Amino acid sequence: MSETFLVVGGDAAGMSAASKAKREAPDRDVVVLERSEWVSYGACGLPYYVKGEIDSLEDLVAIPADRFREERDIDLRTGHEATAIDREDSAVTVGTDDGEEYTIDYDELLIATGAGALEPPIDGLDATDVFTLQEMDAGRQLKEAVETGEYDRIGIIGGGYIGIEMAEAFRGRDIDVTLFEMRQHVLPPFGTSSAETVEDELEDNGVDVRTGTRVEAIDGDGSVEAVRTDSGDVPVDAVLVAAGVDPNVELAEEAGIDLGPTGAIATDEYGRTNEEAIYAAGDCAEMTHAVTGEPAHVPLALTANRAGRAVGATVGGDPTPVGDIAGTAVLKAFDREVARTGILDAEELRAAGFDPVSVTITSASRAHYYPGGSEIEITLVGDADSGRVLGASMVGREGVAKRIDPIATAIQSALTVEDVEYLDLSYAPPFGPTWDPVLTAAKVLNGKL
Amino acid sequence: MSETFLVVGGDAAGMSAASKAKREAPDRDVVVLERSEWVSYGACGLPYYVKGEIDSLEDLVAIPADRFREERDIDLRTGHEATAIDREDSAVTVGTDDGEEYTIDYDELLIATGAGALEPPIDGLDATDVFTLQEMDAGRQLKEAVETGEYDRIGIIGGGYIGIEMAEAFRGRDIDVTLFEMRQHVLPPFGTSSAETVEDELEDNGVDVRTGTRVEAIDGDGSVEAVRTDSGDVPVDAVLVAAGVDPNVELAEEAGIDLGPTGAIATDEYGRTNEEAIYAAGDCAEMTHAVTGEPAHVPLALTANRAGRAVGATVGGDPTPVGDIAGTAVLKAFDREVARTGILDAEELRAAGFDPVSVTITSASRAHYYPGGSEIEITLVGDADSGRVLGASMVGREGVAKRIDPIATAIQSALTVEDVEYLDLSYAPPFGPTWDPVLTAAKVLNGKL
Repeated sequence: MSETFLVVGGDAAGMSAASKAKREAPDRDVVVLERSEWVSYGACGLPYYVKGEIDSLEDLVAIPADRFREERDIDLRTGHEATAIDREDSAVTVGTDDGEEYTIDYDELLIATGAGALEPPIDGLDATDVFTLQEMDAGRQLKEAVETGEYDRIGIIGGGYIGIEMAEAFRGRDIDVTLFEMRQHVLPPFGTSSAETVEDELEDNGVDVRTGTRVEAIDGDGSVEAVRTDSGDVPVDAVLVAAGVDPNVELAEEAGIDLGPTGAIATDEYGRTNEEAIYAAGDCAEMTHAVTGEPAHVPLALTANRAGRAVGATVGGDPTPVGDIAGTAVLKAFDREVARTGILDAEELRAAGFDPVSVTITSASRAHYYPGGSEIEITLVGDADSGRVLGASMVGREGVAKRIDPIATAIQSALTVEDVEYLDLSYAPPFGPTWDPVLTAAKVLNGKL
Repeated sequence: MSETFLVVGGDAAGMSAASKAKREAPDRDVVVLERSEWVSYGACGLPYYVKGEIDSLEDLVAIPADRFREERDIDLRTGHEATAIDREDSAVTVGTDDGEEYTIDYDELLIATGAGALEPPIDGLDATDVFTLQEMDAGRQLKEAVETGEYDRIGIIGGGYIGIEMAEAFRGRDIDVTLFEMRQHVLPPFGTSSAETVEDELEDNGVDVRTGTRVEAIDGDGSVEAVRTDSGDVPVDAVLVAAGVDPNVELAEEAGIDLGPTGAIATDEYGRTNEEAIYAAGDCAEMTHAVTGEPAHVPLALTANRAGRAVGATVGGDPTPVGDIAGTAVLKAFDREVARTGILDAEELRAAGFDPVSVTITSASRAHYYPGGSEIEITLVGDADSGRVLGASMVGREGVAKRIDPIATAIQSALTVEDVEYLDLSYAPPFGPTWDPVLTAAKVLNGKL
């Protein structure tokens, strides 16, 4: 009898692992349990779907379920939810949408249960017209609701990626938007300079940005009437809760799988948990951060895909580390691109033993004489002791999304700021000044180290 | 008496060196000899000037001559040409536009004489209506000539950067263009795949591309009538010679300064020549290539700026290596961006001791569901022995210019293809698929190594 690789969760990490394991070891039984009807979906596309730029939820799916079953020979079971792991017997209990229950034995198990929308500790979350956007069906509900035209004013709780992308989506439908962020700035991991530019961009596009504002409750009588905050009530017709995500760790925790310091599932360099035969990958699991060498929980799509694929290779017989992360991210906020990598927060860096020094410079997206250019603002952080690059953030109207990548590469290669100053980056007048903004930032920072 | 740092040549390398040396050592006399009236100009902008997108030649100047003199206290002498170096006496002979001659003593000397347009061995180059585009005044002459409206058909000799950018410039003025390239493809350092896409783009925009065609002469009676080739005559009204550049090494050579294997001036890691007190930087000098560790001559703007700045720092008392180069370059060819880094040529790589393996993949500039995306084609080359990344080329309609930079960074960091596969590059639906095209190329190549 062939061995069984059982995967719990059929999104990025789970399907990447299943596909890779089957390709590496075609004789192995690969079974995937997915509680919804959706697999391999791009939840990152939901804001654009709600905005109306993408017609159908199906468009977001990278590979349809049938192709996994037919072309890749994966036993993919949608509508099947893993409810318990029995480590002693190497078996998982499964409940189906039809109310049935069964157990399935595994030789190796991957927990890829993802993350759910974090629920802030406020009253009124169960009202009609309160939405989250972590899952596909939630996206459909929200789109259907906004398409009725009944919402004139929406409140967004949370100034992270989803909150900002959804502000753009709602404004695209001419809905008034108030965005509440309890911290002093939106996008905290991007640093203050980039965040302020994004806040200006949001305001310029008609979003009422309320930073430093704590939401206390969603008021209303069954349906939503207002967002109550520590600085007054704001009348709205609906609320999107985008306050962050929580790793889905209940299944693992109940089975005695160790969680790490971040609250996500602890893993080793191969994505293994404290149980030899059980792996975890994706939004439910920790990864090692390239800057600190410590566990971090940065749930992003590429990390999930990559860790899942590595686990699939390992299970398939080719031991493959999941690699480290730099926390690289980019988003579009109306007409701005804003990107980040590494760690910018001085307190966090000092706690990790660094002596961070930061500069913020303004450069240009094209040669000074080439028409149509615009400003790019870069914050670059380095370590005064070692000279290492620790983090960066940038914002601009063009040429930002991929300009963060050489800095991410530098961080994962442990380059110094001086090394970055000497990178041979591309130049032509339509695409930047001779000294790329990244190089200019490194030059200025190096002068301060 | 304070020491004199003498700089020959007032463009990128020369003015960077002069500025940096003066900043590091304000007491030092810094003298720059520039034979033309132009300093610190962006010759890279000339195609856009001729096209008409930039009104004035002065717009191309990064910093005007007076600012160097007044704000930076540099003794900048335009219209002064260095005609001989006397190493014995540490003195340079100078001829001025007014016909005067004098000598000037130096303590340290930088040769930053740049490169000139390479003259192909053909008859007819001295005819009226034959142009080059290496210098500012040549740009002005060409623009004035095309603005007369007398040219209906122009022939371009050479399918490198300038040839292709000028094809776009002439087409923008509705002039018929025939581009002659003696090799099998345009842009040889970019590899065949990218070159073919660029050739298609040129043809789609009305450029008659004649690859594998050797120009034998420019025919005419004083003015230009036709380009004579090994496959027939092509009638034209004017010719742009863009057959590459030659380092300006006469001054150095006559003073007994060593040239390297490329024919440019040989330098050590600080940009020093075989004479302790004499440096060379910019388009006239060699640099060390990050892939081979050997001298290379890749005359580009950033290299010149950077090497000049490093020499200025060294002369100013802060010994600073000029760094290595990856040969990174990008250009815009009508609606395509095409970029490269490292070395792609298999023969060249084998000669340097590598065992190159190459893949070409096609990916996308945006998530598959996000509107407006287009194809990005990437060729990635790695070494079968060490796994190292050796070179890359890519072409697409958007998102290419800066996507080459993480690969350039990887090459200068000696990363392997597997390292690149695990880079944490940025992702959001408007800017690429979850697996960035660079990562996909690395995945596919790694599978073949």
